[in-house]
Amino acid sequence: MNGAQALLTTFVDNGVDVCFANPGTSEMHFVAALDDVPSMRAVLALFEGVATGAADGYARMAGRPAAVLLHLGPGLGNGLANLHNAKRAHVPMVTVVGDHATHHKRFDAPLESDIDAVAATVSGWVHRCMRPGDVGADAAAAIRASGRGEIATLILPADVSWSDGGVPGTVSPLPDPVVDADAVRAAAAALRSGGRTVILVGGDATRRPGLTAAARLAEATGAEVLCETFPTRLERGAGVPAVPRLIYFAKFAAQQLAGATHLILAGARSPVSFFAYPDPDSPSDLVPAGCTVHPLAGPRGAAAALQQLADELAPGIVAPVPDIARPEVPTGALDAASLAATVAALLPEDAVIVDESNTAGAAVPDATAGAPAHDVLTLTGGAIGYGMPAAVGAAVAVPDRPVLSLQADGSAMYTISALWTQARESLDITTIVLNNGAYQILRWELANVGVAEPHSRGRRVTDLLELGNPDLDFVKLAEGMGVPARRVNTAEELAAALREAFTEPGPHLIEAMLRA
Amino acid sequence: MNGAQALLTTFVDNGVDVCFANPGTSEMHFVAALDDVPSMRAVLALFEGVATGAADGYARMAGRPAAVLLHLGPGLGNGLANLHNAKRAHVPMVTVVGDHATHHKRFDAPLESDIDAVAATVSGWVHRCMRPGDVGADAAAAIRASGRGEIATLILPADVSWSDGGVPGTVSPLPDPVVDADAVRAAAAALRSGGRTVILVGGDATRRPGLTAAARLAEATGAEVLCETFPTRLERGAGVPAVPRLIYFAKFAAQQLAGATHLILAGARSPVSFFAYPDPDSPSDLVPAGCTVHPLAGPRGAAAALQQLADELAPGIVAPVPDIARPEVPTGALDAASLAATVAALLPEDAVIVDESNTAGAAVPDATAGAPAHDVLTLTGGAIGYGMPAAVGAAVAVPDRPVLSLQADGSAMYTISALWTQARESLDITTIVLNNGAYQILRWELANVGVAEPHSRGRRVTDLLELGNPDLDFVKLAEGMGVPARRVNTAEELAAALREAFTEPGPHLIEAMLRA
Repeated sequence: MNGAQALLTTFVDNGVDVCFANPGTSEMHFVAALDDVPSMRAVLALFEGVATGAADGYARMAGRPAAVLLHLGPGLGNGLANLHNAKRAHVPMVTVVGDHATHHKRFDAPLESDIDAVAATVSGWVHRCMRPGDVGADAAAAIRASGRGEIATLILPADVSWSDGGVPGTVSPLPDPVVDADAVRAAAAALRSGGRTVILVGGDATRRPGLTAAARLAEATGAEVLCETFPTRLERGAGVPAVPRLIYFAKFAAQQLAGATHLILAGARSPVSFFAYPDPDSPSDLVPAGCTVHPLAGPRGAAAALQQLADELAPGIVAPVPDIARPEVPTGALDAASLAATVAALLPEDAVIVDESNTAGAAVPDATAGAPAHDVLTLTGGAIGYGMPAAVGAAVAVPDRPVLSLQADGSAMYTISALWTQARESLDITTIVLNNGAYQILRWELANVGVAEPHSRGRRVTDLLELGNPDLDFVKLAEGMGVPARRVNTAEELAAALREAFTEPGPHLIEAMLRA
Repeated sequence: MNGAQALLTTFVDNGVDVCFANPGTSEMHFVAALDDVPSMRAVLALFEGVATGAADGYARMAGRPAAVLLHLGPGLGNGLANLHNAKRAHVPMVTVVGDHATHHKRFDAPLESDIDAVAATVSGWVHRCMRPGDVGADAAAAIRASGRGEIATLILPADVSWSDGGVPGTVSPLPDPVVDADAVRAAAAALRSGGRTVILVGGDATRRPGLTAAARLAEATGAEVLCETFPTRLERGAGVPAVPRLIYFAKFAAQQLAGATHLILAGARSPVSFFAYPDPDSPSDLVPAGCTVHPLAGPRGAAAALQQLADELAPGIVAPVPDIARPEVPTGALDAASLAATVAALLPEDAVIVDESNTAGAAVPDATAGAPAHDVLTLTGGAIGYGMPAAVGAAVAVPDRPVLSLQADGSAMYTISALWTQARESLDITTIVLNNGAYQILRWELANVGVAEPHSRGRRVTDLLELGNPDLDFVKLAEGMGVPARRVNTAEELAAALREAFTEPGPHLIEAMLRA
């Protein structure tokens, strides 16, 4: 058994049986070992950012890590933006970066680069494996480390991969996170204080158990519950306690938090502005003056801490949940509102929404509040180019659930080749590209940072914020990668396209023209 | 004048008047300043790897740096692979990475990451600008540093960009590299020794003056001249001294160097294998046993050193050059040979070939040896996804010259959105996508690393090396980004398409089906 075979055996023996891969020469033994370890499913990506984004989406829905196979430093670089998102999502992921053979490193061959330094910027655990006999144990250590909700990066030199002497490793389980009794006491005191108390949920508290506990606490104490701006995986819809998300733009988020005297952090970080702005009234720290912050739990164990708190403060209280309530299928012009209503009217049962719709999808959360229960995956780290790859991973993780990928046009172009992987793997993904022909968020941000209205600026400025000249044709792009696609210009057309896409198996793309 | 205005003014006042940009919120003041500094040409890329690859191609053809504008750590990550190629090409480049405002850094907002660490892996110079009054001087220092053939990375916090107090900077010129008299003496002794001597040219010695000096030395002393495997910019064709390139695969490169007793490095690194292989007869170091290596000059100043050597050893000797010699336009099936012959028959005068054709373009160099003089840009760092972005930069740098982008299909998918920038900027680029439906290089490498013949492996292995299921349709992909495209299946069709593309202004894409 060579190093690569020990690696794959360790992976599948310990529950890591999907690998999103974009291999090169230094990974050929990993590829060859797929013949020997048939229970490993290898999914080819045509670009590394697709592989890392898919592993993120997979982990969010499967609750366990996928492996990612990357080629040397440039492959890691190509995957870095979605590794950043995954780091911020606190998901488990095991990243294998193939490297030059150990004896070849010192020759500084053309593809040599500092993999370790780049990997360290996104990984909670980085290790360079130096002997085939260690591969199994190192792989097991990586899987274990990833369980803390971190990216574990194993750098694997080619000769360690191809040499004999591999021994499969065994993962020793991580202890469950312990609920901090002092933190529970402090939060309980805040909830009993009578002041305006906000529970900010994030991490593992944004799924049904955590949300239910938070909603019971709110019902019992009058506290409010908010969700972090970009949750890793938010359960919502009919039957799930509803929670508004903290708004992306700092001035609106500050309004949501105004007057709070206590802020309980249940899996969420203390809220900060996404960006700073020249306006001196736009703070970085969104905690209101005079508000006390109570860190209750980190991303792992937040639901458990809330449940303990609810058992103490809200015994017998039942969390209110929204009934099913869908809008009528709208007709007429396609704009942000009618798009959102159409989605809400037609969303299938048990869907997964991967949301990188940015500005154009802003109306979707309200519209879908009473849609059948569904999960929403969001852009945790703010690095665009996440949506279509994450949809790949989600669909691999939960093949029986329909995935709806809401994709802004500008962001779509960073990792567009995810569509090819969707087609190759026949994944049940419906992508709506929200085509407004611009980096609309940047038009807004140009004003936010104090620059005069974009429309008063010269063509040279606005050109850099627009996607036109030439217009992108996402129907052709999708068809070029084997995904059936159609363009829709009205709400009726969108509804017809959505019905068809949700009915037929395999991927579909709908280009929704929102220019009007 | 704010920091951004000081930055742009310093750039254009010192000859950096093109910026390849993919901006975000933290770069909005840079974008706004474009109105105030009209001589800066900003070229929008839809993905950062397009921007960095374009800046590389630009520098290779313009001989001076372009600026690149990237958004925070994820933007830098997306650009990293082509920064790696640019580092290995020793080109000047000034990279501006926008960052959070200085007072915002400590809040660890979602897009916060260690930009400095990632930038250091590819940059010869990295600096974080902390005050608007320093921006001009820092920008000038970056331009100066880039002149050493390095990437200079300026990290620019948003508040430093938006605050007043900017002062334009002035670049103090770099001294020319000095020819090392001892190195010239040692090389001269080697050339006079009578042993088999190889001059390996690279860096700035792969253009006409350096090649002419090397060829004169060969003519006078019997030495051989070889070019490094992946030169930054190789001048060749009719009227330019011909030089074979060191072959990519180590076993063939070793044959080219076998028997050499002296190896003179003129701008090239000492030759090493691209990858290591399990075969114990496949060395990492390609210098034959018993051969003495003579480092004559680094990438800058190699041509000057060769000229000094030629003046001493080959006075009055004229370098032989190939006459114009084109094949007939072939007919019939489209394969590597007929594709190469068609290109050679129709290549326009003074063309720039950007070569990322990998395996499928292997016959092109021989076929075009007698074509009109042209430049070839190659994959210096081995990080694929370089070709189409570099073509953008080359076409911006030399708008009066036709650019021929020879692009392998697999590699094309890493930075495919370069086609959109080609269309937006109406660049005179003809792209031939060599479609063989596979990562063909990996099929070869699978065998090279000692794995049994790919065809004997299971479907699970070969699937990871093939681009089919579904097939990519590059015509639709190109049309989806506004580039006119057609598919060709025969040499006649390729010739017709090439004639049309070379005649009409603006970009064209030809998908050459090489599956047969």
